[in-house]
Amino acid sequence: MSFEKLDTLGRRLQALEHALSILGADEATHMAVGGGEARAEAMATLAGMAHRTATAPEVSDWIEDASNETLNDDQCAALREFRRLHLNLTCLPPEFVERQTRTRMRSEQLWRDARAKNDWVSFQPALESVVSMVREEAQMRAEALGLSPYDALMEQYDPGNRVADIAPILEELKSFLIDFVPTALSVQDERLAKTPLRTLSGTYPVEKQRELALAMMAAVGFDMTRGSLSVSHHPFCGGVPTDVRITTRYRTDEFLSSLMGVLHETGHALYEQGLPQEWSHWPLGKARGMAIHESQSLFVEKQIGRNPAFWRWALPIVERHLGESWTIDDILPHVHRVERGLIRVDADEVTYPLHVILRFELEQELISGQLEVSDLPEAWDARMKCYLGLSTIDNPADGPMQDVHWPSGAFGYFPSYTLGAMIAAQQWAAIERDHPNVEDDFARGDFELVNSWRRDRIWKQGSRWSTPELIEKATGEPLNAEYFRRHLERRYGR
Amino acid sequence: MSFEKLDTLGRRLQALEHALSILGADEATHMAVGGGEARAEAMATLAGMAHRTATAPEVSDWIEDASNETLNDDQCAALREFRRLHLNLTCLPPEFVERQTRTRMRSEQLWRDARAKNDWVSFQPALESVVSMVREEAQMRAEALGLSPYDALMEQYDPGNRVADIAPILEELKSFLIDFVPTALSVQDERLAKTPLRTLSGTYPVEKQRELALAMMAAVGFDMTRGSLSVSHHPFCGGVPTDVRITTRYRTDEFLSSLMGVLHETGHALYEQGLPQEWSHWPLGKARGMAIHESQSLFVEKQIGRNPAFWRWALPIVERHLGESWTIDDILPHVHRVERGLIRVDADEVTYPLHVILRFELEQELISGQLEVSDLPEAWDARMKCYLGLSTIDNPADGPMQDVHWPSGAFGYFPSYTLGAMIAAQQWAAIERDHPNVEDDFARGDFELVNSWRRDRIWKQGSRWSTPELIEKATGEPLNAEYFRRHLERRYGR
Repeated sequence: MSFEKLDTLGRRLQALEHALSILGADEATHMAVGGGEARAEAMATLAGMAHRTATAPEVSDWIEDASNETLNDDQCAALREFRRLHLNLTCLPPEFVERQTRTRMRSEQLWRDARAKNDWVSFQPALESVVSMVREEAQMRAEALGLSPYDALMEQYDPGNRVADIAPILEELKSFLIDFVPTALSVQDERLAKTPLRTLSGTYPVEKQRELALAMMAAVGFDMTRGSLSVSHHPFCGGVPTDVRITTRYRTDEFLSSLMGVLHETGHALYEQGLPQEWSHWPLGKARGMAIHESQSLFVEKQIGRNPAFWRWALPIVERHLGESWTIDDILPHVHRVERGLIRVDADEVTYPLHVILRFELEQELISGQLEVSDLPEAWDARMKCYLGLSTIDNPADGPMQDVHWPSGAFGYFPSYTLGAMIAAQQWAAIERDHPNVEDDFARGDFELVNSWRRDRIWKQGSRWSTPELIEKATGEPLNAEYFRRHLERRYGR
Repeated sequence: MSFEKLDTLGRRLQALEHALSILGADEATHMAVGGGEARAEAMATLAGMAHRTATAPEVSDWIEDASNETLNDDQCAALREFRRLHLNLTCLPPEFVERQTRTRMRSEQLWRDARAKNDWVSFQPALESVVSMVREEAQMRAEALGLSPYDALMEQYDPGNRVADIAPILEELKSFLIDFVPTALSVQDERLAKTPLRTLSGTYPVEKQRELALAMMAAVGFDMTRGSLSVSHHPFCGGVPTDVRITTRYRTDEFLSSLMGVLHETGHALYEQGLPQEWSHWPLGKARGMAIHESQSLFVEKQIGRNPAFWRWALPIVERHLGESWTIDDILPHVHRVERGLIRVDADEVTYPLHVILRFELEQELISGQLEVSDLPEAWDARMKCYLGLSTIDNPADGPMQDVHWPSGAFGYFPSYTLGAMIAAQQWAAIERDHPNVEDDFARGDFELVNSWRRDRIWKQGSRWSTPELIEKATGEPLNAEYFRRHLERRYGR
């Protein structure tokens, strides 16, 4: 049976991915400082083995032959995902992949250095070579997949996402936000004029914050027997579904950044822990893609973790762990703080999508050739002024040099962040439609309803559906920016 | 070039070994409790991939072809080790290896349960099937390697070790110890009659013991940038040479068991950290074998860590960390405590070799068929009475069921422990011959001389020499039990 051969292939790839995931998480948390070079060498070799294993010449025969075998529903779905993975992995010639890896690594190294020095001039040629390579890549992917070049890039991250579908939705969101950000800011100003912001005491020991974080993780559904919380420089969710490694970093002068970060990573972790175990060694058993993954992290961080009802339940727990008493009226201005800023990763949920839309527009133009890298600082600055009223022209380090995505060759990824925010809001709306009192559950610290809703409709589906199909099946309609708009209006509007 | 193909093969095996080592260490230290099944599955698959990679049909052609290529000295040595590894891996048919893995796993599981219940009757059939399988294995290895069956088993752990060479040395040691143990015990009794044993205060916080352990590790030469100390249920030294993971466990009622354990594992770690980095992806670059590895751990634990000169330097450091002041005369009776006992892993350096020699004698008889498993409890008891004056006949859990080695099919391994103790003493004697005042260095906390001696003669040699060759090249003569005898007499005799 050829399907059995694919099944065995899946087990081998799974073992290599297990190793790569744990080695990656270990590198950021427990590895000795001198272990980096050997670790990089081992991981590159294992990644190469995984790529060679997945793209071996006989695999396409197995896929073809398996399609003539009698398969059950799950196996048919599994075969479709094996085919998709194989096509996405084999559509670039090996020589190109090697050149790409070298170009990306060089450009990423150069970026780290140039960004620290705010030095656009040295960075520009490196980004030019990445962009020229990505144009070539997009062309090859487009031909293999029968898609437009930018769609072919997005297909790696969110299967089924197409510019034709998402661009109008993001355009609509942009128009709304350009008006709404000033509204939200003046609403905030008026509130703060009445009740000034209560300052944080500034003495939050790491060990107490960690205990609080663990209590919150467990409360929102993290299975503590199948994962852990560590410290790393950049917070992440890694590891494997049976042993999800989430990390945070602590500041002792405030506790909200770490706590909200942990809730965000816990959202990713719940998705991983909830994936169908019986398919865990098939591509079908993996999470669907970046937008859906982000919808799960944002669901926990924003829909649950910044919900006033959540804080009604959470404040006594915060007090128990940190020994500091807060009222709802004092904490919410911190939790719902809106601020225009240059840095995407520091942005709140109101301004964040404008950062993403700016990048989405610019990277489409870069791929199509409408925009050249040399014109990027001006183009970035012009949009930044228009969307957020801020200028970056003298500060490219906080403009087009701020993210690792482009220097590392990841184009087509940015939209996932904001699609995730919209999908989370749409899921929340669907839940509230059926369960109008769900927030009462939050106020009691009961998250089982929202978890079981997402477990059945999202987590257990693995990669059975394309991203748009999954959204529609879970929420009853295609992606609709209206829900996110209403969410923002309710939380930040008049 | 066929050698280049072997070089590439080495890099792949190295990456898989890196993954297996880190995954193994992670499992015992940081893995979530629910992660075990998926981890076992991933590690078994990766181990299978390593085995298949190392034994692929083309590898023997590469080895043959490479022997006709122009190679430098290091490459010739590397080729020899590639050949040895390949022969040791391919001399058993794959079907046998599978059957072996299943038999071992079943028997090990059964052993855990039966040992806890002191239930020899249920355990006996499982051990019988292991022994019958090991006899078969030894026969196949013997034919492939041109060795006697037991020598062929030892060859996996200590290349070059032969019963004809080590049996007379162990016999000589046994005769000495049967007389010497009572002497050492009465010397100890006389001393304790004069000065009673000072009791430990019994309040040693884990965090303080950990700081003390780290200080001692660094002092004796552990490179803190290329390794770390964690906690695990069973102490071990794992990881990779650039990131050596050592572990310990703490008791708060005393500090010596953890500290001496850390020194032991640090000895293993120094060997790993000192291996030749330029050969790290060849079998040539690995540690030579179990006896040499144990000689390095015992060198640090016994020759350094139980040396009175070491304690002259160490006591103020212990006081600084634990806040407790000890005199040399008070601490040495703890560090040099001798006691007859049933359990090998708890034994001191005087009685330990008798535990090993008993097993070495019995396992040779089991392999040759002179002894059957059903007669093992009586045979064990008879020797235990003769060597240590203790009986195990009513207590097989602390007799022939006490070690994991036999139930897991590891025969030919036990001698390594005592060979290691003898090799460590012989190294110490060689160093003292050239540097009669080396103990003065210890009293100042200076271990560079003993480390650089071992770095050049042992660590940097990797697997260039067989075990007996390495002993002779390093110390100037073949293995000689005299040095270990003198070491024990000096420390424990009249």
